[in-house]
Amino acid sequence: MNQQTKIRHALTVKRADDFAAWYQEVISEAEMAEESGVRGCMVIKPWGYGIWERIQKLMDAEIKAAGVENCYFPLFIPLSYFAKEAEHVEGFAKEMAVVTHHRLIGDGKGGLIPDPEAKLEEPLVVRPTSETVIGAAMARWVQSWRDLPLLTNQWANVVRWEMRTRMFLRTTEFLWQEGHTAHADRADAMEETLRALEMYRAFAEGPLAMPVIAGEKPENERFPGAVATYSIEAMMQDGKALQAGTSHYLGTGFAESMGIRYQDREGQQTLCHTTSWGVSTRMIGGLIMVHGDDDGLRVPPQVAPQQIVILPMLRETDEDAALLEYCEKLRKALAGQQALGEPVRVLLDKKPGKATQKRWAWVKKGVPLILEIGGRDASSGQVSMLRRDRLWRADGKVDFAALAQEDFVARAASELEDLQQGLFAEALARRDAQIVTGIDSLDALAAYFGEDQRYPGWVELGWSRPTGGELDEVVTKLKALKLTIRNTPMDASPAEGMCLFTGKPAVERIYVARSY
Amino acid sequence: MNQQTKIRHALTVKRADDFAAWYQEVISEAEMAEESGVRGCMVIKPWGYGIWERIQKLMDAEIKAAGVENCYFPLFIPLSYFAKEAEHVEGFAKEMAVVTHHRLIGDGKGGLIPDPEAKLEEPLVVRPTSETVIGAAMARWVQSWRDLPLLTNQWANVVRWEMRTRMFLRTTEFLWQEGHTAHADRADAMEETLRALEMYRAFAEGPLAMPVIAGEKPENERFPGAVATYSIEAMMQDGKALQAGTSHYLGTGFAESMGIRYQDREGQQTLCHTTSWGVSTRMIGGLIMVHGDDDGLRVPPQVAPQQIVILPMLRETDEDAALLEYCEKLRKALAGQQALGEPVRVLLDKKPGKATQKRWAWVKKGVPLILEIGGRDASSGQVSMLRRDRLWRADGKVDFAALAQEDFVARAASELEDLQQGLFAEALARRDAQIVTGIDSLDALAAYFGEDQRYPGWVELGWSRPTGGELDEVVTKLKALKLTIRNTPMDASPAEGMCLFTGKPAVERIYVARSY
Repeated sequence: MNQQTKIRHALTVKRADDFAAWYQEVISEAEMAEESGVRGCMVIKPWGYGIWERIQKLMDAEIKAAGVENCYFPLFIPLSYFAKEAEHVEGFAKEMAVVTHHRLIGDGKGGLIPDPEAKLEEPLVVRPTSETVIGAAMARWVQSWRDLPLLTNQWANVVRWEMRTRMFLRTTEFLWQEGHTAHADRADAMEETLRALEMYRAFAEGPLAMPVIAGEKPENERFPGAVATYSIEAMMQDGKALQAGTSHYLGTGFAESMGIRYQDREGQQTLCHTTSWGVSTRMIGGLIMVHGDDDGLRVPPQVAPQQIVILPMLRETDEDAALLEYCEKLRKALAGQQALGEPVRVLLDKKPGKATQKRWAWVKKGVPLILEIGGRDASSGQVSMLRRDRLWRADGKVDFAALAQEDFVARAASELEDLQQGLFAEALARRDAQIVTGIDSLDALAAYFGEDQRYPGWVELGWSRPTGGELDEVVTKLKALKLTIRNTPMDASPAEGMCLFTGKPAVERIYVARSY
Repeated sequence: MNQQTKIRHALTVKRADDFAAWYQEVISEAEMAEESGVRGCMVIKPWGYGIWERIQKLMDAEIKAAGVENCYFPLFIPLSYFAKEAEHVEGFAKEMAVVTHHRLIGDGKGGLIPDPEAKLEEPLVVRPTSETVIGAAMARWVQSWRDLPLLTNQWANVVRWEMRTRMFLRTTEFLWQEGHTAHADRADAMEETLRALEMYRAFAEGPLAMPVIAGEKPENERFPGAVATYSIEAMMQDGKALQAGTSHYLGTGFAESMGIRYQDREGQQTLCHTTSWGVSTRMIGGLIMVHGDDDGLRVPPQVAPQQIVILPMLRETDEDAALLEYCEKLRKALAGQQALGEPVRVLLDKKPGKATQKRWAWVKKGVPLILEIGGRDASSGQVSMLRRDRLWRADGKVDFAALAQEDFVARAASELEDLQQGLFAEALARRDAQIVTGIDSLDALAAYFGEDQRYPGWVELGWSRPTGGELDEVVTKLKALKLTIRNTPMDASPAEGMCLFTGKPAVERIYVARSY
């Protein structure tokens, strides 16, 4: 985040100056989303939604490849389902949208009110998650061991009544996928839980180019009713952690409350072991805060709705026709290429407007490659290429490279692949540099996070894995420092030394951080 | 629907005996959907949802190819938006789900109730359609003629509180796409309205193999506030009409109520002309009632989640391994083929269960081609093929064809293409045979529909295109016969003779029918 004074960046707010304001400016200037006028709900605009469509497409292919089948379950859940699963409700703080009426009538003053005559006998809750309604279906669908494993997923909108919202990160309504599976035994259910976790890790580090730590959440951060909760945790450029996906092993408790039983091979009625796992539009918030820079968003090519944008420098003269023809030929040649395992996504932007204005709009959107084509480029068979991850020359000028058209077409795929890798490498190096080890007392921890550094990153500690009341004490101490335990990494090398919270020998490593 | 007595069909109810009960049995036996336990809402199961995913994928490509961009708008719409657009509300009969509270609390008796302390100041309506909330966004997004046309679409769930529901055809919650566009003038908006209509016609007659009449709805059937409403109308096997998609030209009225204005090239503030258009999961209901037969569903290959299912006749012996290896090779060879412009979708079904039971499950699901492979087929390099549209031989036996494996692989694509065409041709011939012309008086019309024929089909009439009160009289007369006017076909040859309702010269043709 070093600033070269010569450079006039495209955004008005810099990450180093006000990260939260910078985040909002990226979303607005990249035309990803905006406030909708409906409390806590956003409008996701084409560029933001296009990224979500890319996430959906790639993730859905992984979900299907694992044998999971997509279904669709009702938006509304009867109140009684929640009462059944009281522990479940506890976790959602009961902040849910409740439908109580099914008709509007005039209020006699030109307005409308819920019709008192059309009050529902049983209120309906707008789903905050679908465990209960899917669990009820599973109880119908699972009869015998032959029906297992039952692997379902849905792509849906869900609603949690959040008091403080932030676009993509925490909105009243958001979009997600939720996988729900039922298994014959613990081993099979744990395998599925960890398969989903690994799918999320590989997805984050692959298409999203976002390094993550996959690991187990501490007991106090478990999903209500879960026996074990796993997460992927990404580090934002302000050093805070973002939980970007979770996978839960629910044991038999949930099956018991919903009555999900099967007849095993010996004819015994047996409880299923269930799992659930999900990722949401929150991932897009992570993408912004991991890859954005002071010129706006940078989208990794695998999830970019468009990977290359061609900008013809139209002059509203007769020569425009030849220029457009050249650009259209170039577009076709590029669309015929394969990059990162798919056809290249390329847009010829013919919209009216000044070429430089259009360029900066695309820079802020973070399209990986921009090609500006003027009349002279067209007549000499050239392109001017701008790579979004190498925007500026040392002298503060925009770093266009002039290339012969055929040369660019031939290397477009490798440019995109290089850019994808480069964003990951950059984010990984930054994250690893911001993970601190060697802090061996609570005072040292407090001192570290108390220092006047804006973006302190994460601290890696060994601990004794306390539970119950002992864990509560740890959580309280951390909370006083505005810190949380993120997770215990899956690939943990054994911990050494003593737990700085309990004084007992450390048994595993954890990450401690501020978080979204 | 002639029944050969020798054949033992897979369903218990025949179309000719009880069409409504047959419809429910298809949905249940094909495992497409089921009641959810939530009033009026269904659970869409993998086979039904897979068909919807196919519809989405193919339709979305057409929508994008037309330059329309996907967005996502909030599920909740403030009550005041509806009050603004009173005429709009009128059309939805005000039957909508209303959110009034944002929190649950315990009722002190172990149950939960909406927290009286958490009553919303302004109730929120669960979107029945998104005109108002998208219109509000358009008013923000459109400033100048350069911003036009503004072409948006969303794939979403919507809720209309229906009193009498039927799966896929009329459910409280359903899935759809809704296109919303704003244009500089009438001509451009009409072009978009008709482009969407033609997209729907081509989609219905192509991928869905469902013949439709594309045409304009009469004034009384217009979408509230629309200047013109167009539809595609399909004939079900019981002769009733199903409106399977609509496209509306809204003129400037909607833009006026939402404030969607642009500065034209001369600097004048000018109202936009807007359109909206949509299709929904209702299409799946149409698919069932057009293509289903007494053995279950038949899915046209283009929208079939799986086009070919391979059923190995496993015996739980050592020979199973060789059989599975043979089947897996076959699966790979088929997956490498292209049919109807896409890779062939083929499933090797290894689930436990008896081969004949599994066969009939797939027949009822309507998968286009079933391959049963026994040990002898594997050792002799053969396959036994069953085409879903030619299930029975004249002698009442199932019509398996034995083919050399390579021969089948080579012709799999043409079998699928032939089946796709065949389903369309069959439906078209049946529909055309059930359209009656030459009825020239209201009495004759009443007599025709009063006859004791179960499935009278449609009547094509010339009429004088009455409006206002004159049209109301026509509608009332038809209603007494349980009839509605479907539409005036786009490709209408000029009408001849006199209007049987008004006695004036006929100016165009209409279809009159019973409908869903």
